[in-house]
Amino acid sequence: TTTHKVMLLPGDGIGPEIMAEVKRVMTWIEGAYGVSFDVSEGLIGGCSYEEFGHPLTDETLARAKASDAIVMGCVGGPQWDGKTDYDKRPEAGLLRIRKELDLFANLRPAMCFDALADASSLKREYVAGLDILFVRELAGGVYFGEPRGIEDLPGGGRVGINTQRYTDAEIIRIARVAFEMARKRGNKVHSAEKANVMESGLLWREEVTKLHAAEYSDVQLEHILADNCAMQLVKNPKQFDVILTDNLFGDLLSDAAAMLTGSLGMLPSASLGSGGPGLYEPVHGSAPDIAGQGIANPIAAILSLAMALRYSLDMGDAADAVEAAVSKALDSARTGDIWAEGFERVGTTGMGDAILAAL
Amino acid sequence: TTTHKVMLLPGDGIGPEIMAEVKRVMTWIEGAYGVSFDVSEGLIGGCSYEEFGHPLTDETLARAKASDAIVMGCVGGPQWDGKTDYDKRPEAGLLRIRKELDLFANLRPAMCFDALADASSLKREYVAGLDILFVRELAGGVYFGEPRGIEDLPGGGRVGINTQRYTDAEIIRIARVAFEMARKRGNKVHSAEKANVMESGLLWREEVTKLHAAEYSDVQLEHILADNCAMQLVKNPKQFDVILTDNLFGDLLSDAAAMLTGSLGMLPSASLGSGGPGLYEPVHGSAPDIAGQGIANPIAAILSLAMALRYSLDMGDAADAVEAAVSKALDSARTGDIWAEGFERVGTTGMGDAILAAL
Ligand SMILES: CC(C)[C@H](C(=O)O)[C@@H](O)C(=O)O
Ligand SMILES: CC(C)[C@H](C(=O)O)[C@@H](O)C(=O)O
Repeated sequence: TTTHKVMLLPGDGIGPEIMAEVKRVMTWIEGAYGVSFDVSEGLIGGCSYEEFGHPLTDETLARAKASDAIVMGCVGGPQWDGKTDYDKRPEAGLLRIRKELDLFANLRPAMCFDALADASSLKREYVAGLDILFVRELAGGVYFGEPRGIEDLPGGGRVGINTQRYTDAEIIRIARVAFEMARKRGNKVHSAEKANVMESGLLWREEVTKLHAAEYSDVQLEHILADNCAMQLVKNPKQFDVILTDNLFGDLLSDAAAMLTGSLGMLPSASLGSGGPGLYEPVHGSAPDIAGQGIANPIAAILSLAMALRYSLDMGDAADAVEAAVSKALDSARTGDIWAEGFERVGTTGMGDAILAAL
Repeated sequence: TTTHKVMLLPGDGIGPEIMAEVKRVMTWIEGAYGVSFDVSEGLIGGCSYEEFGHPLTDETLARAKASDAIVMGCVGGPQWDGKTDYDKRPEAGLLRIRKELDLFANLRPAMCFDALADASSLKREYVAGLDILFVRELAGGVYFGEPRGIEDLPGGGRVGINTQRYTDAEIIRIARVAFEMARKRGNKVHSAEKANVMESGLLWREEVTKLHAAEYSDVQLEHILADNCAMQLVKNPKQFDVILTDNLFGDLLSDAAAMLTGSLGMLPSASLGSGGPGLYEPVHGSAPDIAGQGIANPIAAILSLAMALRYSLDMGDAADAVEAAVSKALDSARTGDIWAEGFERVGTTGMGDAILAAL
């Protein structure tokens, strides 16, 4: 039997609860597909800081690097806000693993599950059938640029500095991913930046334009200012197929789009590098307000596993099966965040039960 | 009679058309309130580039500085995209006037006109009565930070660089505006940044917290991550009263919020400095696609004039009258962007006619 090395990083908040359901699904897959998962667990974020004084240890990082795929929960919580050194906050662990594994391509689907179209704050006709793929640059930009920090000013006072920095090579490799993805979908890419205000955005626009002309002229390309993109996502989200963004704009725009769908608790994401393992995690955060109550929705985490099966473990069939089971389970059981009249209201384990039953 | 020096900068696209209606309203005010407007017109943006080779000339800037208030249309258009030097693009004229007049406080109401609540892509209950005030820092941050530019890399290739930079003094003066505004409204401020990723955001959070504790502890303050803010604006926009942001986050978030209201063509904004004239402009852009057709909605520009009357010219009564006339006019006439069954469909001048009739 094939053995896949899978690293699990449950993280903080609801992370451990939803990851428990991921493990149950993995056990089912082992039985059904005759594979074996060599599972390694580790800490990331605030829980790692509590245990080791650092949000991601070298040892955990080394095991992550040696795995075939990493499935993560989520990090952060108010108990660590401003309570640790800046380089030891929970998010620093996440940024470190992204950077060290060079996970430059963050794929974030913002799709509306038909069964949940009425859960959106938008009118049904604006979101039913919505299916946007964000291709967000994840290993560069203002998240990592130097110089950065808080400094004392000579005349008194302080200044906070961050640097947005993109090379042509960084832009081209993420744009390539967007064009390749578009070819497999609606064949349309919107590239969002603020070229009218930022030179880094101007370089972005120029390099995307060049790559498009040279290799992807069959794909429809539109440049859109990031502020206008934010507007258009609200006005008419279905006009989009693939949206290509840098790290920071992608953070805001993909979160807004995820919320538009009304299916936030359902959305997985993949972060891919250039060879090593991919990292798979829900789009939603650690939801400290409901952590430990057994009511969190595990679907985004389970669909993240499905993405791992498809993109890193070459098990597209198993991914299909998991996704189909999630759809089926939604016909009966629903966690609180997606509950509606006529459905059984279940907790985290109950939702896992329903998905396993459908499998 | 009192004389007010008002500078008009129609700009590009639909700017000249909507500004023509502003002028008609100004003429009515002169008659009704016994004041006189000493009007000076100038070019800004692409039209200034065509005429003078620069998007804002020193001469125009000097006249703007010497005025009591500046009412602007909008700048930019595809005919200049990438066709001029970067420091001569239309937007550079707008950034220059903001910087030179030190217009650090951009007030952007995102409110839903009751008559238009159904025009939103959001369900009526999410937006009816919506009234958010963005207080966006406008003279600093990544829009102006140095170093910036596109450089050749030693080993070949290029890099695009921008710098996010905020001093404590810059943060404190804009936060003060937000707290003062909140006291006159719902008494609640959400301060949005990415303190979990950017040190400039961390300094922002620290300084806002300190100012709040020292002088504004009667105002409710919440810190919110900018990506979560984007989500919450979609999920439940009515939770917000005043949103305090830096220049770049404010650009995206306020645009998204403006679109949520369904009233984009109606929204004015004010940019205030510390003494000199304020600049008043619609939130919407230059809409090149409909420019010159006489169909643009002049209401945002006319309401920008109302803001000028209130904040720069000490004519609150006249501002009230203009705002009331706009409300009244909406009961009958509507431009295409806000038209609905049962209303007369009018063009730019027709909308101006209806407002003048209501006055
Ligand atoms: C937790 C945080 C560092 C992270 C980010 O800003 O990238 C999160 O918001 C995300 O989008 O994955
Ligand atoms: C035109 C552009 C430079 C400007 C900005 O980015 O600030 C506009 O989007 C705005 O929000 O006023």
